[in-house]
Amino acid sequence: MSNNKVQPRIMPGFMELLPEDQIAFNRMFETIRRVYERYGFLPLDTATIELSEVLLAKAGGETEKQIYRFQKGDTDMALRFDLTVPLARYVAQHAGELAFPFKRYQMSKVFRGERPQKGRFREFYQCDIDVIGVDSLDIVYDAEMPAVIYNVFKELAFGAFTIRMNNRKVLNGFFSALGYADKIGDILRTIDKLEKIGREAVEKELGEFGVAEADIAKILSFLAIRGENDAVIEALRAQDVDNELYRAGVEELATVVAYLRRFGVEESAFIIDLTIARGLDYYTGTVFETMLNDYPSMGSICSGGRYDSLAGYYTDQKLPGIGISIGLTRLFYQLKENGLVPPSQASLARCLVIPMGEAQMDAALAAATTIRGAGIPADVYYQSKGMKQKMKYAAKIGVPYAAIIGEDEANAGTVMLKDMNTGEQRAVLVAELPDAVR
Amino acid sequence: MSNNKVQPRIMPGFMELLPEDQIAFNRMFETIRRVYERYGFLPLDTATIELSEVLLAKAGGETEKQIYRFQKGDTDMALRFDLTVPLARYVAQHAGELAFPFKRYQMSKVFRGERPQKGRFREFYQCDIDVIGVDSLDIVYDAEMPAVIYNVFKELAFGAFTIRMNNRKVLNGFFSALGYADKIGDILRTIDKLEKIGREAVEKELGEFGVAEADIAKILSFLAIRGENDAVIEALRAQDVDNELYRAGVEELATVVAYLRRFGVEESAFIIDLTIARGLDYYTGTVFETMLNDYPSMGSICSGGRYDSLAGYYTDQKLPGIGISIGLTRLFYQLKENGLVPPSQASLARCLVIPMGEAQMDAALAAATTIRGAGIPADVYYQSKGMKQKMKYAAKIGVPYAAIIGEDEANAGTVMLKDMNTGEQRAVLVAELPDAVR
Repeated sequence: MSNNKVQPRIMPGFMELLPEDQIAFNRMFETIRRVYERYGFLPLDTATIELSEVLLAKAGGETEKQIYRFQKGDTDMALRFDLTVPLARYVAQHAGELAFPFKRYQMSKVFRGERPQKGRFREFYQCDIDVIGVDSLDIVYDAEMPAVIYNVFKELAFGAFTIRMNNRKVLNGFFSALGYADKIGDILRTIDKLEKIGREAVEKELGEFGVAEADIAKILSFLAIRGENDAVIEALRAQDVDNELYRAGVEELATVVAYLRRFGVEESAFIIDLTIARGLDYYTGTVFETMLNDYPSMGSICSGGRYDSLAGYYTDQKLPGIGISIGLTRLFYQLKENGLVPPSQASLARCLVIPMGEAQMDAALAAATTIRGAGIPADVYYQSKGMKQKMKYAAKIGVPYAAIIGEDEANAGTVMLKDMNTGEQRAVLVAELPDAVR
Repeated sequence: MSNNKVQPRIMPGFMELLPEDQIAFNRMFETIRRVYERYGFLPLDTATIELSEVLLAKAGGETEKQIYRFQKGDTDMALRFDLTVPLARYVAQHAGELAFPFKRYQMSKVFRGERPQKGRFREFYQCDIDVIGVDSLDIVYDAEMPAVIYNVFKELAFGAFTIRMNNRKVLNGFFSALGYADKIGDILRTIDKLEKIGREAVEKELGEFGVAEADIAKILSFLAIRGENDAVIEALRAQDVDNELYRAGVEELATVVAYLRRFGVEESAFIIDLTIARGLDYYTGTVFETMLNDYPSMGSICSGGRYDSLAGYYTDQKLPGIGISIGLTRLFYQLKENGLVPPSQASLARCLVIPMGEAQMDAALAAATTIRGAGIPADVYYQSKGMKQKMKYAAKIGVPYAAIIGEDEANAGTVMLKDMNTGEQRAVLVAELPDAVR
């Protein structure tokens, strides 16, 4: 390379794929979208760049540090760092024009200037659904959300998965009853680390927060409640916790479990797990995480929950909602690392039409037009190269069929159709090509 | 609104749509993508943020001024302003891993900090296809490109359109033969304005560039050659122009016209127009513009052409190619302004299932699951409101069918299916719902 060339490269923390992986990625993307749409979620595509004042109305701490923020002219602007703040802004801005409950999906890139590390991205797709009500939002939506997720991961078919559910009212009520209402934040943060740092470290940390030893035992035995969903609900009802919020949360869990069954979600796919807390302030009711059973190290691949107020920073209107998010870029990376992305060909075409020479170009175009006319992707190799190179190209892009047209085939209105996997060849009438390659 | 609220808003020059328009936009997007894929183009999704050094390797002038560029830590980065520079960088970076000819499509947002004005956007979708060869790229691709565009606009169905074609070799050869080889840039820029500023202004400007009066007449009569495509080609062949490049360009035009017919493109949809020049340096052969016949004021809605060297700033490899681009955000805006976007409902669901009361929720879920099981989007109204409000919601989202379930229907395993357009109602078995609402 001569010295005056710029080295073609991208920055660390940005994902770019070769065609075969991009095709596999897009298949996942479309599967998620298809399920979202089937459940009546509406597409939304917000601006990538927003006013910093608007985007950061609520933010602080880490978010503020990670955001890509810049001036252009006199305007202070920034790239969106999630899809929830833009949704809040959009709903507040257009409340008069939307029908509520407003169900929207958005599958777009978001941007966070994190320190790049393995499996963390600075630019990544989030695939979000949220339902927003005005003043109130029925509990059935708390079951519809995991039902959607259930169908997404069923169709993605990466193996057995479990949706783990909890309810923040149960946790908040339980801790308030023990007299730790002011320490819920610290306690939940510590509990969130139970799987990561282990029981002993959690006990120690809780002690440091001033939780009495007897209460630590109570807390940990409470959090260890496990079993069939109905048994867990009975155990929660039987707990000696004198707190209304707690009681309300348990009944919400019971209602969600009952509705999940009616949504046709298999019992093996969802489980109540009292250790799920999902951060601090935002969520107020049902919360979810989703794990691939055989790959716990991947962590939660889809999370979310119920919140009381979506857009408090923009409007006085009370807008309760529930949402979930799949971080698709990271998920794709993890699936790929674990060999779970099914191999894809480097072509979308079902058939590559190959004219032996220029004299067969007309016949080749006619054949390709016939296949495409049936809505099936097809390609033609137009370059005037030797037959060997043409077949090498077909093999390289991994197209399932090659339709070779020489003089005889052109005269007979046929192609020599080669199955690129088995190597088998047979003469096929051009009119029958769509069925032969479909 | 209380004083401590941030006003929810976006910046001028950014397009955000309400659900009914977003649905219409997405339909156009998917139509374009489907046709691109049918012709064997591969998906590509490059990074939104790139190193400024890489992104601006070739840029200058207006581009440099419009770009969104910023520092994060020590890194000088910028948002992509088109999809061609990222393609060049990607191909140079991954040349060893790609199969050539490399056919890719990318349909992504690009960013330009232009002064906002009616119909100009700072963040907009480009829908690009390009074919890149190594060392050479067959002329058939020059016909495949307009064939793809023909099929795109046929399927978008916004009315009659014309693909206007020219060849830069014809223009360059013609002007060189007249002795204006060093003024081609100025002359072509002026010619590009023929439709905008008119013949007289063009004559005056050409005179100012030192074009002799006799030559101005020759140039303008040359550019006025019009007619059936074959007649234009004969007229071009008959011209007394002693220049090899000119002759080569005319034969390329003739070849592209012949191939377009073989691709099944209607003769009425493409025309040779010698006034099409498409900018200055980049294009070297076939060039295109596309107009809606009844809306000439919209200007070109899809443009592109052949270039000799895609990635000269990144690699010494010769990478000739041909590409076209649809500026979808601007096109959507223009179509909408002209009343050409077909009205869409504000819902993707074909049917809204409405339980009369909570007792019918189970039956409602079963009905929705049945419809969704057939792959048809459906929604359920879960909120406990009065029947009137439920029907108002159905009307507001514009769903074609409402499936109302009261006690009788739940017991009979039926729904009262209301056609929301005609108002007609009839009892339908739940099992037959998918066919009834499809």
